[in-house]
Amino acid sequence: TRSHSLAVLPGDGVGPEVTDAALEVLDAAQQRFGFTTERTVVPLGAEHYLETGELLTEDTVAQLREHDAILFGAIGSPKVRPGILERGIILALRGAMRQAVNLRPVRLYPGVPTPIAGLEPQRCDLVIVRENTEGAYVAQGSTVHRGTPARTAVQESVNTWYAVERAVEFAYRLASVRRGRLTLCHKTNVLVEAGSLWLDVMEEVGQRFPDVETDYVHVDAMCMHLPVSPERFDVVVTDNLFGDIVTDLGAVVQGGLGVAASGNLNLEGTGTSMFEPIHGSAPDIAGRGWANPAGACLSLALLLGELGEGEAAATVEGATAAVLGQLPALAGEAMGASTGELGARIAAAVAEGSTSPVPGS
Amino acid sequence: TRSHSLAVLPGDGVGPEVTDAALEVLDAAQQRFGFTTERTVVPLGAEHYLETGELLTEDTVAQLREHDAILFGAIGSPKVRPGILERGIILALRGAMRQAVNLRPVRLYPGVPTPIAGLEPQRCDLVIVRENTEGAYVAQGSTVHRGTPARTAVQESVNTWYAVERAVEFAYRLASVRRGRLTLCHKTNVLVEAGSLWLDVMEEVGQRFPDVETDYVHVDAMCMHLPVSPERFDVVVTDNLFGDIVTDLGAVVQGGLGVAASGNLNLEGTGTSMFEPIHGSAPDIAGRGWANPAGACLSLALLLGELGEGEAAATVEGATAAVLGQLPALAGEAMGASTGELGARIAAAVAEGSTSPVPGS
Ligand SMILES: CC(C)[C@H](C(=O)O)[C@@H](O)C(=O)O
Ligand SMILES: CC(C)[C@H](C(=O)O)[C@@H](O)C(=O)O
Repeated sequence: TRSHSLAVLPGDGVGPEVTDAALEVLDAAQQRFGFTTERTVVPLGAEHYLETGELLTEDTVAQLREHDAILFGAIGSPKVRPGILERGIILALRGAMRQAVNLRPVRLYPGVPTPIAGLEPQRCDLVIVRENTEGAYVAQGSTVHRGTPARTAVQESVNTWYAVERAVEFAYRLASVRRGRLTLCHKTNVLVEAGSLWLDVMEEVGQRFPDVETDYVHVDAMCMHLPVSPERFDVVVTDNLFGDIVTDLGAVVQGGLGVAASGNLNLEGTGTSMFEPIHGSAPDIAGRGWANPAGACLSLALLLGELGEGEAAATVEGATAAVLGQLPALAGEAMGASTGELGARIAAAVAEGSTSPVPGS
Repeated sequence: TRSHSLAVLPGDGVGPEVTDAALEVLDAAQQRFGFTTERTVVPLGAEHYLETGELLTEDTVAQLREHDAILFGAIGSPKVRPGILERGIILALRGAMRQAVNLRPVRLYPGVPTPIAGLEPQRCDLVIVRENTEGAYVAQGSTVHRGTPARTAVQESVNTWYAVERAVEFAYRLASVRRGRLTLCHKTNVLVEAGSLWLDVMEEVGQRFPDVETDYVHVDAMCMHLPVSPERFDVVVTDNLFGDIVTDLGAVVQGGLGVAASGNLNLEGTGTSMFEPIHGSAPDIAGRGWANPAGACLSLALLLGELGEGEAAATVEGATAAVLGQLPALAGEAMGASTGELGARIAAAVAEGSTSPVPGS
């Protein structure tokens, strides 16, 4: 039988709760589709940092490199100063594992409440591809004249043909197997040098994808279109900082944090891809079973897709969507079922349910 | 009688149409509140550029400097390459006129349809203060190795204590006469140097405003909160690039482009403030009377407020809101009345209506 080795990073707060739910769903998928996984739990996050002082160590990097994929929960705690874990773990992982793109499907499943009035599921099915390694995230920056009225901070955004081409090519490839539309989101009218690099990459790579139609939308205009006209988009490719912003807006449109999944993909086999719900560790509700495991389960579906378990991926997505679409609320006590109970329901739906990807689609 | 001198820049496309409507409203306000204006129309925009090759010239700058305020329509045409007018006129004006902050009220008026399900007007009344002169908008940038696979573009974001303090102080002052809440929106967990400058300015200036409560929201999280929980915010202060993005999202929440107004404010008498609807020149609908003049009229209200005509400002805002709240649709033919007719209706409401700022508030 096929076997995959997974590193599991449950993290803090509700991270372990949603990860447990996703692993139960994974069990069901394995049974049904006849593959196995070896799972190694790796402690990383606020708790681990407070106990050991360790962020992402070289040993952990070496260990993670040995696995086929990483399933990540969430990290963070009010006991750790903001920025430490983000930079020391999340951004460090993206760099060390060469996770070139961040993939964020924005899909509204039938029955899931969206805050956008009158939005129908069939109008909202797009994928945002975010360059994941550079841009403003190179982020050292510098300050001169600290402590004086002349204090000045400079942050650079570095944009290489190498990384932009990699992300854009991935996005074209994805568009070519979807509805054949690719939108570049940037701010070329102000960020002229970076913008023209992105535009030139789009044009050059586009020659290899003559069947993909392209267009361009400024990031500010994107914030106007995405909520009310998501049907305008199939695949959107954008830089690291703009991607950070518009993907969170995308999450709102699809029903909020609890529902959104992401994959940080290594594209060349030079590291390990990582899949995580986009919600945080939510320490205020940890331990109560109030977190929605859908984000983690949909991230698991992305992971399975990357491992070549396409049927399992589609089934996990469909089962999660079906259970989600029945919930009276998307988070908290009002969900009417605990994180664990929802995991069990999704697992049951995977065991018994149809393999059609999403109900009603 | 009090007299104010205005420079009027109607611009292109629907710019002159909405500006005419706003000027009719201004006539009514003058009559009712007993002041006069001297108006000088200044040709700037795509048409003028195509005829003369001129963008913002030193002569025009000198001329604008002589006026008390600038009323701006919209510029742009498909005949001019994107970026030319934005940089050559809009950004050039912000710089030359030292328009330190960009003010963007986000207010949902009663009866105005918002795409956000269940959002009530009383939950949506905030103001975004955007630093308007620096950050990523210094925007030269540089490219090395053009034409090779090593091509790399660097864009800097420059953040000075001087400009950030000016914007933050303005925002504190505004919060102190509103509901006393100020939120900083940034990305301090990634843009560490710029972020800590903003945080330090917030803290230092805050000592002079002990009654203003402050908090902090990352720009990505802002895109999640602003659409569904605008009541969390009273005044939001943010940098130039983040401000560009979140203010457009704010416009969506308040009913879209047609409704949103802005002011580019010079705070020290070293230049002239400029007021403009945030929509563009919309060449596709120009000449048909399909543009909503509300954005221009609400910009006029901001202008009147800055000129010290507080009663007139409140009345123009209230009249515009009242007319807006009756419309069957916010733009196009479906509005059921032309740009000019709506201008006349708002003018009539100014002439006769109450001076209470907004109906139902
Ligand atoms: C935690 C933070 C550093 C991160 C980012 O900015 O990329 C997060 O917002 C995300 O989108 O994954
Ligand atoms: C036209 C463009 C340069 C401008 C900006 O980016 O500031 C616009 O989007 C705005 O918000 O006024």
